[in-house]
Amino acid sequence: MQDSPAYDKVLAAHERIRPYIHRTPVMTSVSLNRIFGRELFFKCENFQKVGAFKYRGATNAILKLDKEVLSRGLATHSSGNHAAALAMAAKMQGVPAYIVMPENAPQVKKEAVKGYGAVITYCKPTLKAREEELEKIVGETGATFIHPFDNEDVVCGQATAAKELLEEQPSLDVVIAPVGGGGLLSGTSISVKALNKSCAVIGAEPLGADDAWNSFYGDRLVPQLDPQTIADGLLTSLSELTYGIIKEKVDDIYRVSEESIQEAMKLIWTRMKIIVEPSSAVALAVLLEHSSSVPGDRTGIIISGGNVDLSSLKALF
Amino acid sequence: MQDSPAYDKVLAAHERIRPYIHRTPVMTSVSLNRIFGRELFFKCENFQKVGAFKYRGATNAILKLDKEVLSRGLATHSSGNHAAALAMAAKMQGVPAYIVMPENAPQVKKEAVKGYGAVITYCKPTLKAREEELEKIVGETGATFIHPFDNEDVVCGQATAAKELLEEQPSLDVVIAPVGGGGLLSGTSISVKALNKSCAVIGAEPLGADDAWNSFYGDRLVPQLDPQTIADGLLTSLSELTYGIIKEKVDDIYRVSEESIQEAMKLIWTRMKIIVEPSSAVALAVLLEHSSSVPGDRTGIIISGGNVDLSSLKALF
Repeated sequence: MQDSPAYDKVLAAHERIRPYIHRTPVMTSVSLNRIFGRELFFKCENFQKVGAFKYRGATNAILKLDKEVLSRGLATHSSGNHAAALAMAAKMQGVPAYIVMPENAPQVKKEAVKGYGAVITYCKPTLKAREEELEKIVGETGATFIHPFDNEDVVCGQATAAKELLEEQPSLDVVIAPVGGGGLLSGTSISVKALNKSCAVIGAEPLGADDAWNSFYGDRLVPQLDPQTIADGLLTSLSELTYGIIKEKVDDIYRVSEESIQEAMKLIWTRMKIIVEPSSAVALAVLLEHSSSVPGDRTGIIISGGNVDLSSLKALF
Repeated sequence: MQDSPAYDKVLAAHERIRPYIHRTPVMTSVSLNRIFGRELFFKCENFQKVGAFKYRGATNAILKLDKEVLSRGLATHSSGNHAAALAMAAKMQGVPAYIVMPENAPQVKKEAVKGYGAVITYCKPTLKAREEELEKIVGETGATFIHPFDNEDVVCGQATAAKELLEEQPSLDVVIAPVGGGGLLSGTSISVKALNKSCAVIGAEPLGADDAWNSFYGDRLVPQLDPQTIADGLLTSLSELTYGIIKEKVDDIYRVSEESIQEAMKLIWTRMKIIVEPSSAVALAVLLEHSSSVPGDRTGIIISGGNVDLSSLKALF
């Protein structure tokens, strides 16, 4: 296990990225407070640039690069929010972004990444094909590969969302964040434990993609095989880096059913009038299933993003 | 035509309702600014209590009532946001609300009004049946009928949304608001013209329910027959009161197609990550169809509400 980055690095990351990111609002809802019997504070990264917290980490990682290295561009393989975030962050710095995407990625995501001006290379939809294609591009262009979460600078960037939340609400009892690759949850835990030691940090994970829960309770990194969930941002496995931080700083991980994720998403859409993606609803879903186990009253929820393909949601409503 | 209420009444209304309402945020969107080539400022009444600006007017009207009169309760006939607003405002004051609703009103609206603790009476879905039932209830209970827009106190309450918008953004070139019965548009025009004389005020109306446009250009109150639009908050006709204010203070009214309303709604949902009802999208739709005629650059948009029956939106996405 790697050591957790010191909170100093989060402070530095925040200074570095502040001119480029949105300081997103912390929203509350009287009706959700009544339904859940708690005081809820939602950190709304669905309002972040590119519609997700991923823009924080990508921006921090590329701003730390040497100018000459940066000028050769950035590269990653992803079909999700990290690809969009890296493409947009590269555009802001005026350097090329090379994104490897599986040829079967949803059209809406292809167009988003293209819209941010990235060079897209399509490959077969396997991890092996993605990695080979990425290696080839890095070899040819000299671009720097920015991993979506197995990267300390990315983690410290994601940590700034919880830092902002606790700056506004210092006396929270607990903060809940969704966990996929673990960049958001590990970053959240670094900031929360630095700013308020007595505040619990809880990871929220779909039952159908519960590698973080298995790793946390199995005391070793257990990769995710065949994930099955509508929370499409939470399909990946933890990395050595994020596992180590989570094991050290996170208090617990709770798993939730697909039904709870859908119900939580509908509650947020209809009561708060904001659009969140299924992955974001996983954190609130924890309170639908496990409220009596979750400590305290004043509860922070990290809303990770708002990028949903509306046409795919017909089945939900 | 009746005289427009003086802005003093709006100031008094704001003081009166301030403890009960949300001061809603003014949101911006870099991507919508780019798409429309303007600087847009959205006053987000979808985040108001009961999810619509209607809570402002209902609250002001009932707080102006004599205590003894108020204690006998409030009544209205409506299947929409005004019913919910009146029910909630009555609940906040601890007095009964009697709502007459057509028996074919959507289940989701029946439940919302019931959820706020109102006494609902169902009637046949005709205006005559509604009015008769309402008269009967008022006779039996002594409750006060609060009209959704043909009421100066309601108009002055709705005017506080634009007042807050201009307090935050005093130098707007134009403000666009949707027009149904005209309570929001007339109130908006009172505040805008009092705070910034050179700022234009534009009404936004569906082509399929264009009584305000017909009245504005026909120089007489033309009632709406057989309205056809997905903007279900904009089906009603202007009243003498709202027509008079609009004729005096509004600069122009633009009509938009159903296609533009749908496109504008999708843009707001996907780019801003907020849920708005079709009636709210009508204001942005004006910029899709008539941008070259709309003066200036800094543009305020009143987002009227966010109450949508998500299951009915399947056809849209």
